[in-house]
Amino acid sequence: MGEKIPHWLEKQAQLNPSKTAIRFERGATLAFSELRIESRRVATSLQSKGIGKGSHIALLANNQADVPVFIHAASYVGAVLVLLNTRLTSSEIAYQLRDAEVTDVFVSQEWMDKATEARSTLPDCRQYVLEELNQSKDDGESLIEEIDLDEVFTMMYTSGTTGRPKAVMHTYGNHWYSAVASALNLGLHKDDQWLLCLPLFHVGGFSILMKSVVYGMTVECLESFDEQTIEEAIYQRGVTHVSVVTVMLQRLIEKLGHGQYPDHFRCMLLGGGPVPRHLLEQAAERNIPVFQSYGMTETSSQIATLSPGSALRKLGSAGKALSPASLVIDSEEDGEVGEILVRGPMVAKSYYNHPPSEEPFFRTGDLGYKDCEGFLYVVDRVKDVIISGGENIYPAEIESVLAGLPGVIEAGVTSRTHEKWGEVPVAFLVTEDEAVWSKETINNLIKEQVAKYKLPHAYFFVKELPRNASNKLLRRQLTSLIEGEEYGD
Amino acid sequence: MGEKIPHWLEKQAQLNPSKTAIRFERGATLAFSELRIESRRVATSLQSKGIGKGSHIALLANNQADVPVFIHAASYVGAVLVLLNTRLTSSEIAYQLRDAEVTDVFVSQEWMDKATEARSTLPDCRQYVLEELNQSKDDGESLIEEIDLDEVFTMMYTSGTTGRPKAVMHTYGNHWYSAVASALNLGLHKDDQWLLCLPLFHVGGFSILMKSVVYGMTVECLESFDEQTIEEAIYQRGVTHVSVVTVMLQRLIEKLGHGQYPDHFRCMLLGGGPVPRHLLEQAAERNIPVFQSYGMTETSSQIATLSPGSALRKLGSAGKALSPASLVIDSEEDGEVGEILVRGPMVAKSYYNHPPSEEPFFRTGDLGYKDCEGFLYVVDRVKDVIISGGENIYPAEIESVLAGLPGVIEAGVTSRTHEKWGEVPVAFLVTEDEAVWSKETINNLIKEQVAKYKLPHAYFFVKELPRNASNKLLRRQLTSLIEGEEYGD
Repeated sequence: MGEKIPHWLEKQAQLNPSKTAIRFERGATLAFSELRIESRRVATSLQSKGIGKGSHIALLANNQADVPVFIHAASYVGAVLVLLNTRLTSSEIAYQLRDAEVTDVFVSQEWMDKATEARSTLPDCRQYVLEELNQSKDDGESLIEEIDLDEVFTMMYTSGTTGRPKAVMHTYGNHWYSAVASALNLGLHKDDQWLLCLPLFHVGGFSILMKSVVYGMTVECLESFDEQTIEEAIYQRGVTHVSVVTVMLQRLIEKLGHGQYPDHFRCMLLGGGPVPRHLLEQAAERNIPVFQSYGMTETSSQIATLSPGSALRKLGSAGKALSPASLVIDSEEDGEVGEILVRGPMVAKSYYNHPPSEEPFFRTGDLGYKDCEGFLYVVDRVKDVIISGGENIYPAEIESVLAGLPGVIEAGVTSRTHEKWGEVPVAFLVTEDEAVWSKETINNLIKEQVAKYKLPHAYFFVKELPRNASNKLLRRQLTSLIEGEEYGD
Repeated sequence: MGEKIPHWLEKQAQLNPSKTAIRFERGATLAFSELRIESRRVATSLQSKGIGKGSHIALLANNQADVPVFIHAASYVGAVLVLLNTRLTSSEIAYQLRDAEVTDVFVSQEWMDKATEARSTLPDCRQYVLEELNQSKDDGESLIEEIDLDEVFTMMYTSGTTGRPKAVMHTYGNHWYSAVASALNLGLHKDDQWLLCLPLFHVGGFSILMKSVVYGMTVECLESFDEQTIEEAIYQRGVTHVSVVTVMLQRLIEKLGHGQYPDHFRCMLLGGGPVPRHLLEQAAERNIPVFQSYGMTETSSQIATLSPGSALRKLGSAGKALSPASLVIDSEEDGEVGEILVRGPMVAKSYYNHPPSEEPFFRTGDLGYKDCEGFLYVVDRVKDVIISGGENIYPAEIESVLAGLPGVIEAGVTSRTHEKWGEVPVAFLVTEDEAVWSKETINNLIKEQVAKYKLPHAYFFVKELPRNASNKLLRRQLTSLIEGEEYGD
């Protein structure tokens, strides 16, 4: 049993009843007191379906107005909420529903077909339409009044080197400490407003909703990224913070032209790897304070951040670990490259269905070093994760699907730089009789199992894949195999 | 074992090495990296004396430069630090040293005689001169790198209804959450600077040092309250926050005359009971944002605060409980007066040598109610505590000393309003043969046992004391006994 705090939405409804908690597209808003009432009504509706403390429920929806309400409702009944990525295929979703032992899945109308297909092999998993939920009256009884920071609130899937996605279990404490760590780093002003244009099913988006309820801060929630709306939100509605990935920053700068952001704009929080110098320079010229950050699902959003003041002096750095987090390099000498290890109360302690690690630090799987002033540089990703337009793609996951195709002996996937998306996956196949197929043929075969954004942009047919002595695939050497024709774009 | 965080001073020395941590009177400053080095040197010196994890050590000093360093040093070795009030008599100090099982007491030169006298009956308690401590080199080994939030850091004495002071045990977590709760309430700006003019041996002063190291914020540390210095600190050195008690606010307003505080000044945090309307109006006219607060040693500083925006509308209120704390009234109906109960991770869980309470809420001993908007009004103190110039005086403590005098049958102490100090104690005595003595005579007899600020300002001789059916003294009825001569000022 961990530290207990009052339910955060109850608290904000007391402290800031009439303050806007969330502003949605097309101008609808919910004050904290309204968000509380709505969330409690949905919570009561969940209870009427037998959902309560420890139930595993899932959500499949984009950032629509029902989603923040649903997320808070889950916390009012003490359910564990599995956040499904809407871009996944139905078979990927089915895997996550099964693995997480989900009993009830809540789906926005938009994704009903996908969910129904995913559930076809899961007869015991009930399915509900998200938009039809809010029917019950809050009976004021039996909803959770106190949050135990050690209890699990959310599960989000991420892959490692294994190929199979694993559910990161976030406790309430992970989310709470992450929000507090960010406030200790960025400060907290009375008029702060954070724009949410990342999916709520990713930790980067979800963490903004958590900041809203921990700080009592207004969030503007967009259904998807849109430069025009974001610019208006900053200029006309006083938005002070936006979280983006590199490709979004690029588009915002293009949209802005030679304009400047207003002085009240405090933070462009940038995830997803280092940024090219010219982009940082363009941002600086336009009064856009870019905070480069380093983080992952397991760290409940950013765990290290570089402030704009150091951005050009420490080009390519992700800054220093936030308080109260630790970040060390697993190397023999100071300044040497080694695996990045992190620790702190915002770091998830385990994956669902996996034994908790006994190590004091979480091994990120990324390689990096610290300079003499303690600034972190991420040099490589042990996990070989490909970051494409802000989405993580795990080569091993695609490889295992490709290796399952008839005629394929083995498959290796690595990344290639891409002007728009930063990185995209490309695949190397060893086939029986050295057969060769077109990209379209293969992607057609796997598109049911692999989300569209994960589909390789090119295929190369090779005699064998590079492996080390212990037969581990050396993905970084794959590109050296390119000799002949490329079967892709 | 609780949540672990990196040692907070290590963290700030990494994040803000050259930022001023503490500015002392006469201009001396310590940057976070310097404060770290100094504190580690003193910590190493403590280790050389055999002080380590779990040792009970005490500090007797005013707010001099060695004190913040010593406090952090104690955390680097994991010692439990007993903070002694320098205004106590040597016999009061002896009681606390014995009760807290202190093995080593560190005393500033100024208070050596008092400490030596206190230790005369404690042959096993070693005594050191604080100023002579900083001699060791930091060997970089074996100092605490991670703080366990569940471990006890400090003990501060407070009295209840029992007469005997009890040591409130504050964990690191209590102090950490208190600092975070205050930031979530007041916000956190990059240039915040907090002026510390309350004693560091009280939680109100101590908590400012904790905020400094949790936020990475500059603190200006005064040895004592001085209007002139505080005004200069605000106007010339950019101080944004000051914590005061009512009498200090009054003096600051008098000093300011018809002037105005500059706009960068964000918060006058006011403890020690409600403030008269005219003072609030004077503050508002002078651009002084007064935050009235409610708190006690057990809550690790304020647990409820009223923002300046509501100060006049909610005159006399202490506002709402900070996030993440709960405050409820133990009454049958909403809006009724009842005992104030609080809960949250900043509330100390127990007293030293006393079994931890099994109740989910801490019973403050104060009476209050909440209005329909949830604002707290403290109407009375069950404990009968007298707040005199910001110091708490517990009637039972003085009564037990008075009752010990030859010829005294029983004693009752209550408060009387006082223009300068807010409240002062006055005593009612029942004596053998109805004897009558002068105030000077009695105060001379008890001045070795009772700190000067606790000495009654008047004595009344009565035939009996008002008691209820269960023989409990009804202190609030004492003043109704006043008929005859007053033996006091």
